[in-house]
Amino acid sequence: MIARVNVAVTPSAVAIGLRGFVVIVIDVLRATTTIARALENGAQSVIPCLEPEDAISVRNRVGRDRVLLGGERESRKISGFDLDNSPASYTSAVVGGKTVAFTTTNGTRALQRVGHAGAVAVLCGSLNNRDAIVSSLGTIDAKEALLVCAGQDGEFSFEDFFCAGGIASACTERFPNIAFSDAALAAAVTFRSGEDRIADAIASGEHAQSLAALGFRDDIFDAARLDVSRVVPVYRDGEIFRS
Amino acid sequence: MIARVNVAVTPSAVAIGLRGFVVIVIDVLRATTTIARALENGAQSVIPCLEPEDAISVRNRVGRDRVLLGGERESRKISGFDLDNSPASYTSAVVGGKTVAFTTTNGTRALQRVGHAGAVAVLCGSLNNRDAIVSSLGTIDAKEALLVCAGQDGEFSFEDFFCAGGIASACTERFPNIAFSDAALAAAVTFRSGEDRIADAIASGEHAQSLAALGFRDDIFDAARLDVSRVVPVYRDGEIFRS
Repeated sequence: MIARVNVAVTPSAVAIGLRGFVVIVIDVLRATTTIARALENGAQSVIPCLEPEDAISVRNRVGRDRVLLGGERESRKISGFDLDNSPASYTSAVVGGKTVAFTTTNGTRALQRVGHAGAVAVLCGSLNNRDAIVSSLGTIDAKEALLVCAGQDGEFSFEDFFCAGGIASACTERFPNIAFSDAALAAAVTFRSGEDRIADAIASGEHAQSLAALGFRDDIFDAARLDVSRVVPVYRDGEIFRS
Repeated sequence: MIARVNVAVTPSAVAIGLRGFVVIVIDVLRATTTIARALENGAQSVIPCLEPEDAISVRNRVGRDRVLLGGERESRKISGFDLDNSPASYTSAVVGGKTVAFTTTNGTRALQRVGHAGAVAVLCGSLNNRDAIVSSLGTIDAKEALLVCAGQDGEFSFEDFFCAGGIASACTERFPNIAFSDAALAAAVTFRSGEDRIADAIASGEHAQSLAALGFRDDIFDAARLDVSRVVPVYRDGEIFRS
């Protein structure tokens, strides 16, 4: 039974050893929102890659007919890639049955960082699948949930902290005696103050504003939808599957 | 004119170079609250020291009649020291005219970390002197204010983040066009959600609860008093003076 919830505001704040922890990596705008969407729409798996050339290597190894290249650099589609980092791009028609070799600036790096630290499980959380993530925690034998905000270029990201607060808030309903770290407490306060107008809340962040300026405003509204997906992406041995 | 306010949730999140920045170190429970109190009550200066033996060296160098030893380890007075880390201990009768050689677990370490990074100025902020700090920013020629939370043993501290949010919130009133980083935005939201019941808000943090369990509950109420002091402690060349 999970007894405590903590939030790492950036991946660099994560300690090395994570035995006994379940880790939820959060990159609301947009990697973990997009990963869940790809799996929801029938992608077989998502393989997070640090660099574009790593994604190309995956495609060469697994087979060009089975692998799509997805992700972003400076928020835009990478040259030669099939897909950008907008969740709306990952439709059933495009990703059904495929593996997505996926590289983004923050989210895939956060997954790589926590992926080899001995956690009981590593999940991908977002506002879209918030309740599904919290439900899944009831089935995982871990002492503590660590919510890892992917952040933005190593800096604090408002929407990830906000989402962590949403997950923490939902944890108190499911695990009534769960203890909150100070970071989880602040995140939950932040979430509750904006939960009636989530899109407005996350649109106020610097990264959201820069995304909007680049033409990705719809992604903010898309990512702001709370509890609309039951998909729980699980990262294991370098690959993300639907649980 | 300060154009942006940012929050570092722990000292380790502070970048190395701080040229053009004014830094406000925040350790509400209790170092920066206590430093301001000592100066308010007539202490000549406070010298932050990393270790107890460093404080003893200061006393031996400056003179036993002029120096008091203050601070804590594991929240309690250090053996052989004159004063603990409770702001209420630093009365005029005790500290008037004296220099305090001061060592604490988090606050003095945070000061040491940011003290040599080229900042325009390094100030000690708390809830007690929140408005005085923000007023002083109007006279400092810096491009950005960086609010550095001392944290707790390298971890996020609720009361420091809350206080950073209080400072950020007051900055918007004094500098109407100031930009907020995402961390400043979340901190301000956290502050505003609790500003009507500050003692309750900061008492909910893990560190506050551990302090209360050790008998320091009064310190929480003391540190929670907003805008009650006009003292702005300035850290320069290894020593903190009243500005």
